[in-house]
Amino acid sequence: MTAQLLTCARAVLPDDTVLANACVALAGDRIEWVGPGDALPARYANWPRQDLAGDLLTPALIDCHTHLVHGGHRAREFEQRLQGASYADIAQAGGGILGTVNATRAASVDALVEAALPRLDALMAEGVAVVEIKSGYGLDRDTELNMLRAATRLAEHRPVQVVRTFLGAHAIPPEYAGRADDYLDEVCLPTLNAAHDEGLVDMVDGFCEHIAFSVAQIERLFDRAQSLGLPIKLHAEQLSALGGASMAALRGARSVDHLEYLDPAQAQVLARQGTVAVLLPGAFYTLRETRKPPIAALREAGVDMAISTDCNPGSSPLSSLLLTMNMACTLFGLTPAEALAGVTRHAARALGLDAERGAIAPGQHADLLRWSVQSPAELSYRLGFNPLIERIQGTPA
Amino acid sequence: MTAQLLTCARAVLPDDTVLANACVALAGDRIEWVGPGDALPARYANWPRQDLAGDLLTPALIDCHTHLVHGGHRAREFEQRLQGASYADIAQAGGGILGTVNATRAASVDALVEAALPRLDALMAEGVAVVEIKSGYGLDRDTELNMLRAATRLAEHRPVQVVRTFLGAHAIPPEYAGRADDYLDEVCLPTLNAAHDEGLVDMVDGFCEHIAFSVAQIERLFDRAQSLGLPIKLHAEQLSALGGASMAALRGARSVDHLEYLDPAQAQVLARQGTVAVLLPGAFYTLRETRKPPIAALREAGVDMAISTDCNPGSSPLSSLLLTMNMACTLFGLTPAEALAGVTRHAARALGLDAERGAIAPGQHADLLRWSVQSPAELSYRLGFNPLIERIQGTPA
Ligand SMILES: [Zn+2]
Ligand SMILES: [Zn+2]
Repeated sequence: MTAQLLTCARAVLPDDTVLANACVALAGDRIEWVGPGDALPARYANWPRQDLAGDLLTPALIDCHTHLVHGGHRAREFEQRLQGASYADIAQAGGGILGTVNATRAASVDALVEAALPRLDALMAEGVAVVEIKSGYGLDRDTELNMLRAATRLAEHRPVQVVRTFLGAHAIPPEYAGRADDYLDEVCLPTLNAAHDEGLVDMVDGFCEHIAFSVAQIERLFDRAQSLGLPIKLHAEQLSALGGASMAALRGARSVDHLEYLDPAQAQVLARQGTVAVLLPGAFYTLRETRKPPIAALREAGVDMAISTDCNPGSSPLSSLLLTMNMACTLFGLTPAEALAGVTRHAARALGLDAERGAIAPGQHADLLRWSVQSPAELSYRLGFNPLIERIQGTPA
Repeated sequence: MTAQLLTCARAVLPDDTVLANACVALAGDRIEWVGPGDALPARYANWPRQDLAGDLLTPALIDCHTHLVHGGHRAREFEQRLQGASYADIAQAGGGILGTVNATRAASVDALVEAALPRLDALMAEGVAVVEIKSGYGLDRDTELNMLRAATRLAEHRPVQVVRTFLGAHAIPPEYAGRADDYLDEVCLPTLNAAHDEGLVDMVDGFCEHIAFSVAQIERLFDRAQSLGLPIKLHAEQLSALGGASMAALRGARSVDHLEYLDPAQAQVLARQGTVAVLLPGAFYTLRETRKPPIAALREAGVDMAISTDCNPGSSPLSSLLLTMNMACTLFGLTPAEALAGVTRHAARALGLDAERGAIAPGQHADLLRWSVQSPAELSYRLGFNPLIERIQGTPA
């Protein structure tokens, strides 16, 4: 076991306060003690010590909602929209989500890994140590499995923890147009079983929206997920208020994501159930939405708010979690402290990892970031600037 | 003189078209020839050749409107606003532009250079080779001169061309509150002369707004600038329609900047005078403005539109020109081709450098960027992702 003491000017604690003259004791790959330097227990006196000088220490960042693995990109469609093309024009030209489905189906697992690595590297350059990655651009058995295999493989290429989410209920593929229930029965649910058998699934997600799956259809998906013992989460209330968020919360979902159209009264349900609200300002920005999630109601009810890139090729081609933090503040009105909690301990809770990720506290992973900033607010304040100095990890026993 | 041939899959030409199988001949620090590989003149046949494979070649980028040199930052104020503080509260707590003025006055030239370098490095990491930098946070003789000296010195630390702009008429310092004309006569105009005598001024800029200087006051500034033979430009029509943009254009300004409140009918004046419209979507985003510059009118009149970070500590703490390109598309509706022209040849024109910067054309600086993208649209499409492979510069004779 390696032992190490870190001392720094400021460390962010799990209650959002900043501890001055902080000292953190790392034993193996865990944090063993944290506190003010002048309260350091005598047993640490002779441990090797790294002085981080005037810098700020935070937990490593967590991106808890991404579609990082996918084939192709949609720059042509981005351009066409700005040249005045309608969504119908674009769909007719093979664009939209089906463009990504086609490109993903055409890609091997190797090609999916290769394409995802630069995006993963962009996230990790800003200190992301845990990334959730969804399937959902295959919409057939083989490609859904390949996406999850690619997500699994990314963690072999980089020092990152990957949480894999089955999102077979992301959209209805063209071959099942108008037959969502048949798609669920014939493709989605059997593929979930197959992926689970192969050990590829950590969580199950769906897209509950009038253009995708109804609340009743998502309930069928959740029945299957829960019969397999898998945790659930949901894309809900992004474009309309179908009631998916409260349904998911009442069934014990770890998170409900997007929430622009969430009825503020439902914030109480999320709070009572301990369901995390995952906010995705990159999609709000890219789609030029005007209706924001009910932040004041969520805050007042005491709902934990996480924020995430939603990294995807269509509505959020975003691979900067720092930019996402700025957007959460600027566009949604989160405070910088809420934004930081949203990419650390609340993001950890959204993934069921809060016992060991997302906080500088005893028992947590020794996975910390050293930033060249004077206050946590600076992380959200700047746009397109990365003040990360280094990621500091303990080493296992 | 060094000679080099570059071949690549795609190069962006000055008419926004993409040349396939392009070949560029670099002689010393200039471009000597560009064209399709199969039309390469025989005289280049034996030149050393670098194959850029499937990548895209563009001119180096130009950030034509920044306040890169300044003391301190305003993260605390960003946080206070999100916690509900009013602008009056913030001003009372020493925030706002005066906070930056105080921090800048307190800084030495060395400290200003030191603080600006990380921001400059962030811009250069995305291929910025020319950056305009303004004074305007000193508002007294010594500090205005120090800001311009710091801007000058940055070009000694990094391979970047710096264009220095005197912006003494940025705000009225507290010691001249209510006495803008006295400030002009006693500080601003004499300091412009002193800065010019020291060889520190390439252009002269002002802030024409009801919270800063009137059209008549800016005209007095421009009289002085033009008597010294210095080109002019103006922050105009950002928060209200004072008419500064057309006044400046009629006096031959190289650019007018911001323009959210520009009367669309005035676009004709800019077009006729050849004045560039510099759009600053980072400030629009950060201030949560809703009124956009009249893009359709500017486009129809044939006004060259440049875009820039406006990198400043208050309304645009932005140091990514790629993110600015995305914002110009997403928030203002520019096409990706317009966004790229806005950070290359139109930005060059805004700085009077178009004869030798901003295009892949004979006679231009051999200062090129190699990107890992398939089309120019990809540069604007992604958020928080940097696909730059390398900057390729010729070497002087
Ligand atoms: Zn999503
Ligand atoms: Zn400005």
